[in-house]
Amino acid sequence: MNTSLLQELSAICGQTHVLSEGDLTAYEQDWRKRSRGKALAVVRPSSTEQVAAIVKACAKAGVSLVAQGGNTGLVGGSTPDGSGLQVVLSLQRMNAVRSLDPANLTMTVEAGCILQTLQETAEKAGFLFPLSLAAQGSCTIGGNLATNAGGTQVVRYGNARELCLGLEVVTAQGDIWQGLSGLRKDNTGYDLRDLFIGSEGTLGIITAATIKLYPQPAARLTAWAAVPSMEEAVKLLGLAHQHLGAGLTGFEVMGQFALSLVAKHYKQQRVPLYEDTAFCVLLENSDHESESHAREQFEKLLETALEQGCVTDAVVAENIAQAHQLWHVRESIPLAQADEGLNIKHDISIAVSLIPKFVAETDALLAQAIPGVRLVNFGHLGDGNLHYNVQAPEGSDGVAFLRDKEEEVNTIVYDSVARFEGSISAEHGVGSLKLEKLEKHKSPVALAMMRSIKQALDPQGIMNPGRVFKT
Amino acid sequence: MNTSLLQELSAICGQTHVLSEGDLTAYEQDWRKRSRGKALAVVRPSSTEQVAAIVKACAKAGVSLVAQGGNTGLVGGSTPDGSGLQVVLSLQRMNAVRSLDPANLTMTVEAGCILQTLQETAEKAGFLFPLSLAAQGSCTIGGNLATNAGGTQVVRYGNARELCLGLEVVTAQGDIWQGLSGLRKDNTGYDLRDLFIGSEGTLGIITAATIKLYPQPAARLTAWAAVPSMEEAVKLLGLAHQHLGAGLTGFEVMGQFALSLVAKHYKQQRVPLYEDTAFCVLLENSDHESESHAREQFEKLLETALEQGCVTDAVVAENIAQAHQLWHVRESIPLAQADEGLNIKHDISIAVSLIPKFVAETDALLAQAIPGVRLVNFGHLGDGNLHYNVQAPEGSDGVAFLRDKEEEVNTIVYDSVARFEGSISAEHGVGSLKLEKLEKHKSPVALAMMRSIKQALDPQGIMNPGRVFKT
Repeated sequence: MNTSLLQELSAICGQTHVLSEGDLTAYEQDWRKRSRGKALAVVRPSSTEQVAAIVKACAKAGVSLVAQGGNTGLVGGSTPDGSGLQVVLSLQRMNAVRSLDPANLTMTVEAGCILQTLQETAEKAGFLFPLSLAAQGSCTIGGNLATNAGGTQVVRYGNARELCLGLEVVTAQGDIWQGLSGLRKDNTGYDLRDLFIGSEGTLGIITAATIKLYPQPAARLTAWAAVPSMEEAVKLLGLAHQHLGAGLTGFEVMGQFALSLVAKHYKQQRVPLYEDTAFCVLLENSDHESESHAREQFEKLLETALEQGCVTDAVVAENIAQAHQLWHVRESIPLAQADEGLNIKHDISIAVSLIPKFVAETDALLAQAIPGVRLVNFGHLGDGNLHYNVQAPEGSDGVAFLRDKEEEVNTIVYDSVARFEGSISAEHGVGSLKLEKLEKHKSPVALAMMRSIKQALDPQGIMNPGRVFKT
Repeated sequence: MNTSLLQELSAICGQTHVLSEGDLTAYEQDWRKRSRGKALAVVRPSSTEQVAAIVKACAKAGVSLVAQGGNTGLVGGSTPDGSGLQVVLSLQRMNAVRSLDPANLTMTVEAGCILQTLQETAEKAGFLFPLSLAAQGSCTIGGNLATNAGGTQVVRYGNARELCLGLEVVTAQGDIWQGLSGLRKDNTGYDLRDLFIGSEGTLGIITAATIKLYPQPAARLTAWAAVPSMEEAVKLLGLAHQHLGAGLTGFEVMGQFALSLVAKHYKQQRVPLYEDTAFCVLLENSDHESESHAREQFEKLLETALEQGCVTDAVVAENIAQAHQLWHVRESIPLAQADEGLNIKHDISIAVSLIPKFVAETDALLAQAIPGVRLVNFGHLGDGNLHYNVQAPEGSDGVAFLRDKEEEVNTIVYDSVARFEGSISAEHGVGSLKLEKLEKHKSPVALAMMRSIKQALDPQGIMNPGRVFKT
């Protein structure tokens, strides 16, 4: 027990915000319950100055820090290791919206702001903050930026990275880098902002950010199309880009088996058009003009797609409730898959043009290796990002499947990804879960540069050590 | 004379591509003729492997390298210093388009490709590569990325950074980082791509890039509006975002004096609407639907703007020729300004919301310090980026003005930029020209991190030393 450090931390944030006893599960375990650690303490600062003082105190004591937002990450990057020697620094109390600048289309917010709160704050002011993902009710913008989160609107608005103009960061030395900025152009030196974004807390702690806002579209319409194959889904994507331009704000593909699990486990949900087709696609069209214009655009697109045979049937949601239902089907896939039993998840990306070939080849390799294997294949096709998940053969024991087959399945999938020059982590990051895989799949030149940068900015190695890569 | 290095370089690229005698002005002097250096040699490799071998040879000899594309930069970043000891590495021979992937909306190109050639290659394939700037006929994509170039389409498509998905880079050690990638999502470690983009050749040499393509819009329409003040120009920008959404691909503001110089020096050009108004705005609307739809949208916007008083008069170009004429007026401002005499250029950015106040305050400070001073104020208001240039009082001697007043003018302007939390280099970079200013205006925490990164990736200090910051 490092009593003098704990006293120092209490002096910084107040004793009630330094937790070292009682049940700290909420901070020590990730929500998928795959990594469980033990913290020396959880500290909950309320200001950037407090964060800086905490980092300085930890640096002096040689104690490492794990920054944590909503703790909704999927790769075990925001929970402490098992040593009981790390300090978890929770940003949750830093949740102020510092300013909203309508003419500049920006908002400056603290790292602990909940994503959904930011979406709502923007909406109340007449704007859109387009980052949108499953965990939005509990994840924080700091975590979104630290992991460069993706989600369902990336095809139009980009990842978290593209939505951020400036950062405030506490460095590994406990200095405050005041890099908040609402500037859309600033070429005064190295792009430190994008270095911290996606670095998963290993280089410094993001305490605030200036994020981009967009005008609220006048209408957002959702369509659902049956497509006969992945090839045709890619063709449909090309048509959608042409017909809708920047109006195309969502393009999600869902395999038949993935949809059948939603139909099976959520009988109250109506899953359209999936029974006679290999894939369905959910499309979203955001229109700055009007709902009738959006509908007209959608109808033209779907007519063309039907004529060209890349769509066999389609529906356009008649109202917001129907649109929500369609999105709800898409969002229910991960849960339905969990209800079906344990499975092996992958978050991969491939050039869109290569996805049909990748899926065909990898499906075949898995079927050959594990007869009866079932593929829950869905994802953000507009970004080349698939959640290509592998479910045990029907009736088999999920626990045994994971124990006996996880390594083999991962090797097949990631080797296939490598052949197609894709990424083994499209939007979830590396954390601790994909550490070993990254060593194998990332270019040694890139890894060497990453290690040099880590050494340069955090020579003491106190910022979330052992995450992203081994040090 | 480093004879053995020259021999080694000749062995790598062939003797005809190692220039060390004769007139090397084209490589040793920037096009504004503000910096003139002396190279040990100019080498012109034709492949990434040759670039790597050159860097290795130079590293071994302890000789530093200056990477050069079209040599059209505005801050003296791509010409050698006066020592006669640096090697200029010209990428001009590496100008292949390696591939174009229509379904993935990407193109992989070598660093020496001319920007305009890439625009044309994309167009022939039915796509748009939206990076667009004055030097496009001679600048290279490698240089555009090394300086994170901006231009006239940033309001919709972002800077060069936002248009690049992957890079191939030769590191300071002469290793090849194969970071080419057409992936829109890839969260496997630090964002090395964006670290090299905008680093002005000080961390490594960009040899190729995978860049984003967009569907060609069905129509691009241009309008020209008289606006009574900068406040009203900002209001018009907000209306344009609302009415045109992502259709808004250009929003350029031009002060009356700037336009009067075009009218004065290019009598064959018709400059519309400028005589009775403080500013004019050029707007571009790109529409994926049709020209008639684009026109209808423009008319609705301009009607609303006229009603609200932020526009007093406006014209919409009737055809492509008229649109070109309007853009030509905008693009003639820098030349007209040069014809008028020597002047002091600034490339600054400020939050859009603060620009009216910045302009009013800085105009007043300059007028007070230098009676009769004339402001050539124009730029990309949609991105908060002004070319806020200062011309000598009428009839005064330009040479004397520069000699006596440049430092004072720069101090007034940059101190004002600092008060408004803006940037002293929005889109041109730092190079050697703004080195001193950067030391004064950049946060010391940021500068320290930049120096650590430089030291980590280029410990020998051979990549374009003395640019961006002093080492």
